[in-house]
Amino acid sequence: MTDERPIGVFDSGVGGLTVLRALRELLPGESTVYLGDTARVPYGTRSAATVEKYALNNARTLLQQADLKALVVACNTATAVALPALRAALRIPVVGVIEPGARAAMAECRGGTIVVLGTAGTVRSEAYPRALHALGHKGDVFARACPLLVPLVEEGWLSGDIPRLVVEEYLRGMPSDTDTVVMGCTHYPLLRPVLRAALPERVALVDGAAATATEVAGLLAERGLARAAPGPLHRLLVTDAPEQLARLSRTFLGVDVPAGDVELVDVLMTA
Amino acid sequence: MTDERPIGVFDSGVGGLTVLRALRELLPGESTVYLGDTARVPYGTRSAATVEKYALNNARTLLQQADLKALVVACNTATAVALPALRAALRIPVVGVIEPGARAAMAECRGGTIVVLGTAGTVRSEAYPRALHALGHKGDVFARACPLLVPLVEEGWLSGDIPRLVVEEYLRGMPSDTDTVVMGCTHYPLLRPVLRAALPERVALVDGAAATATEVAGLLAERGLARAAPGPLHRLLVTDAPEQLARLSRTFLGVDVPAGDVELVDVLMTA
Repeated sequence: MTDERPIGVFDSGVGGLTVLRALRELLPGESTVYLGDTARVPYGTRSAATVEKYALNNARTLLQQADLKALVVACNTATAVALPALRAALRIPVVGVIEPGARAAMAECRGGTIVVLGTAGTVRSEAYPRALHALGHKGDVFARACPLLVPLVEEGWLSGDIPRLVVEEYLRGMPSDTDTVVMGCTHYPLLRPVLRAALPERVALVDGAAATATEVAGLLAERGLARAAPGPLHRLLVTDAPEQLARLSRTFLGVDVPAGDVELVDVLMTA
Repeated sequence: MTDERPIGVFDSGVGGLTVLRALRELLPGESTVYLGDTARVPYGTRSAATVEKYALNNARTLLQQADLKALVVACNTATAVALPALRAALRIPVVGVIEPGARAAMAECRGGTIVVLGTAGTVRSEAYPRALHALGHKGDVFARACPLLVPLVEEGWLSGDIPRLVVEEYLRGMPSDTDTVVMGCTHYPLLRPVLRAALPERVALVDGAAATATEVAGLLAERGLARAAPGPLHRLLVTDAPEQLARLSRTFLGVDVPAGDVELVDVLMTA
């Protein structure tokens, strides 16, 4: 038995392509539809009420475009703020990036402090501390908003003095017993070498993209929703500037996507 | 004769408060209503069609809130892209920031290259080169998109190595005959000391805020719309996160605004 329906994935913009990439790599038989809400990016600086509204708009838009079997919220801010509302509103399974990220951190942590780097919205939501403590973390959690990192990545400044100094500034004041740092934003894995170099060797550096893909795979298998047939279909949708996603596709998705293959859609404004 | 109606001012977010500040200083008798579209900021990375739609939304929202005598578009990107549409749609005078900024640059320029620093949207629109050449500039215009500068300012990193290196990076490759640099984004005047230090002494550094206020003053006088009476009223509206504008009001507007004094409004989605 096989379920041909695609997996929906949405993000505030292009960052979620790192999660899409992990999904495609782990589940090469599955079709996907990705929506980047590039007309309203970024979510990280916005209020919870606004992010929740946007997340529901995005889910409705994806469901209007395709009959989905599951929805992945590939945006830390939207996951932090809107996951309960999405689960209440939709009849398909909804997977966020924070619980998998927290589980990946727990697998590395040896009882010290876990540092979470994220957007202002993700930090303000306290979703990571909540998830980590629910998973049994006994140490401290230290969350730091890093608003410069997303524009740094989108500018392509991934090495040299500027990203090094910015990362050092954001890691300043990190507790001395820190043993795990979570990249709590889908853009940050592109800065992995810079973060790695700025951290002591004993500190583990984790991101939730691979862990999220694993969680989706388990969920599909468990519910008999997996697809085994060849020839999966992939669609990329944005609410603004398709050429921008195309330009960044090599960096974020690992493949070159022609601008003509990115579809421009209007977001549904009804939540 | 005096016209008690307020002047409307809109921006994509908080940056336009630097223009509002210049307006209030030059025209202390005038009432103002400011709208920061913080639910959809930033505009600088978006397509022209989206920015035009948002600009019309904002103008309608302001006109619903108050009977305006004039509208100031305190956002370079919105001015660059949407000024003709706004002028066609509205029956009140509309003033943007680019023509005044270009005039201020022309007053400083001694025939060399004029460098314009701005958002991706402003640069892509080519509005500054167009305005400068229309005003008779014979030299070159070199426009550079600087996406890191807005988050740097909002993070409050206005001095030290990081802003210095970022600014130097953006000024790299500036033509040797440059004699004038235009701060073509309302956030950039907060980085004036860093920009000043990175530029040779012979290069003039101009911003359009003061020039825009002067243009508004002239227009009101000319059409008999000025207000002389004491007790002007000032309102600040945002489409998201009033506390954020309040927090940044000291930096951008020069006065401390309590969060309770910032009104949250829904933007009108009909253009």
